[in-house]
Amino acid sequence: MTPHRAVPPRIHIVGAGLIGASIGLGLTAEGWLVSIEDRNPKIQKTARRIGAGAELEEEPDLVIVAVPPAMAAGEVVASLKKWPGAVVTDVASIKGSIAVAVEAEGLGERYVGSHPMAGREVSGVESAQGDLFKARPWVVCANGASVAAVDLVRGLAEALGADVVTIEADAHDAAVARVSHSPQVAASAVAASLAGLDTDDLALVGQGLRDVTRIAASEPGMWADIARLNGSNLRASLSLVVEDLTRVRDAEDVGEALAELIERGRLELARIPGKHGGRQRQWAEIVVIAPDKPGQLLRLLTDVAAVDVNIEDLAIEHSPRQRVGLVMLSIDPARAHELVSALGERGWEVAS
Amino acid sequence: MTPHRAVPPRIHIVGAGLIGASIGLGLTAEGWLVSIEDRNPKIQKTARRIGAGAELEEEPDLVIVAVPPAMAAGEVVASLKKWPGAVVTDVASIKGSIAVAVEAEGLGERYVGSHPMAGREVSGVESAQGDLFKARPWVVCANGASVAAVDLVRGLAEALGADVVTIEADAHDAAVARVSHSPQVAASAVAASLAGLDTDDLALVGQGLRDVTRIAASEPGMWADIARLNGSNLRASLSLVVEDLTRVRDAEDVGEALAELIERGRLELARIPGKHGGRQRQWAEIVVIAPDKPGQLLRLLTDVAAVDVNIEDLAIEHSPRQRVGLVMLSIDPARAHELVSALGERGWEVAS
Repeated sequence: MTPHRAVPPRIHIVGAGLIGASIGLGLTAEGWLVSIEDRNPKIQKTARRIGAGAELEEEPDLVIVAVPPAMAAGEVVASLKKWPGAVVTDVASIKGSIAVAVEAEGLGERYVGSHPMAGREVSGVESAQGDLFKARPWVVCANGASVAAVDLVRGLAEALGADVVTIEADAHDAAVARVSHSPQVAASAVAASLAGLDTDDLALVGQGLRDVTRIAASEPGMWADIARLNGSNLRASLSLVVEDLTRVRDAEDVGEALAELIERGRLELARIPGKHGGRQRQWAEIVVIAPDKPGQLLRLLTDVAAVDVNIEDLAIEHSPRQRVGLVMLSIDPARAHELVSALGERGWEVAS
Repeated sequence: MTPHRAVPPRIHIVGAGLIGASIGLGLTAEGWLVSIEDRNPKIQKTARRIGAGAELEEEPDLVIVAVPPAMAAGEVVASLKKWPGAVVTDVASIKGSIAVAVEAEGLGERYVGSHPMAGREVSGVESAQGDLFKARPWVVCANGASVAAVDLVRGLAEALGADVVTIEADAHDAAVARVSHSPQVAASAVAASLAGLDTDDLALVGQGLRDVTRIAASEPGMWADIARLNGSNLRASLSLVVEDLTRVRDAEDVGEALAELIERGRLELARIPGKHGGRQRQWAEIVVIAPDKPGQLLRLLTDVAAVDVNIEDLAIEHSPRQRVGLVMLSIDPARAHELVSALGERGWEVAS
């Protein structure tokens, strides 16, 4: 098999939730032959009606198991047995337990794990979008699979516009425990620790707490499954966090202990790849005070564009009691002074 | 003394760092009579040259102590003694220990604590901006102060365009331990827990971790002082977080324990006041894929404005390896469908 096939592989998708149906829509739009099934007949019908795939008619080349994480291992093994000529992948956010189940059956050559790192705060077939995976990481765990099987799954991710990242299943699970699962628990623990504060106290909440706790709004049910499937990695990662929090709490000099922790944290943050995979750049941040009414953001960006400054990042912070917003523009530090002057001339209040 | 004085009070600022010099610039711009001093002659000279205040010539009505938190209590007491006719305030982010020091000297009637909740990731007189406090909360802790003294400090905050929040010193310190200091430690502990991950692992970092750890980039030195001055509140807040993390880690069913924690966290997040002090609203989020080149954001917002949809919030997420950005627009859910269609017609890729 060559990586560039004249004819795309025949795809069968098992499970027509947000991820399964989005894959179906995306591949169908690319001209691939896609079939889709769901054990719920109503969902299956909707998925087929919106064009996420047809009824299965021929033996597929590649089966994509897109069921909830707790059911993925069983469904992957069943699919490998049902279609002995097909490669099978899945989309669960935990990969080790599935790989173990497949190896136990001696079917590892045709199984490649996937973890498309895309999602929405909504779920279900009705939220499906063919572009869901574009420009997002798509993790591919080869493990014991053949080169041809891996190429097939890689081609799938690339057809959807995703950014392929290859890693072994166990390494994936250990890494996501640290970069995703344990931060999720920490965010929820910080949110829960607000219990008992009254309304006046909550008036002191700033952007920092909002950032730390944004992901704490996630759905409990899916996270319960993820925690169970990645239990030992999650426990180990939580222990690292608990150990550092406890060290600060119990230190004779709490200040010294916190400064040491912040230093260590900063060293790690500096290692996270920044924009476009390069090192993180330091941008200058300009804060503009804008009345909170339609068209202000547009007017501001028009004025920024007039001096030909590129906006690297932009965030809006709302004042809780005033009808103005603070717009934070991240730009090239070399252009900051010029932009501040230009905005001032055009009547903008630049706060800092 | 009436709250609306014909002549603004004479202000003297002790400490010409970012906060002190910004207050001086802002009040001077409002036509107030301001003097400023700094124990570092070079900084004092710079502050006066940029117009943050003149040399002290007359007894001030209001002294603003703007020195690092660890020095604030001593400097406030010294100022109360040096100017027996003046009201004294300070800008430290911890208020209880200063109030205690002032009460011990029997000088509480003329002392009002302030905590302007503004700041920048840079510091020093050269970063000062008169508009730094505009539309930001400014906490006022009256404690044992006279009504006239409180009015004076409230007038100061209002002259700078800040949003006054009144709270007692001890309640302030307990609240900021929970909404600011303990989240800071948690963010740093999550960041530090990435130690040992290799470059491939870090490719799995998503927006969630970036949000949780954004404040972990803060300066260690200032936080060491804050932790020391608010030690017992911080310890108590950290214990709440540690207790929940430990409960999840040690649970027989880690999934059930996490789901329970997420539920509790969500209840607390729902209590945080949203935009403009009201309840948080649910916005529809539309994700647009935009090539990362100058003018794209402007073009996008122009197209949004063409259908007269107001953007409630906007964030940019970068794909680590592709030269496109994801722009997340938060809008009125009732307009979402229409906007998606309109953007599609104008050639935008809407991802989800």
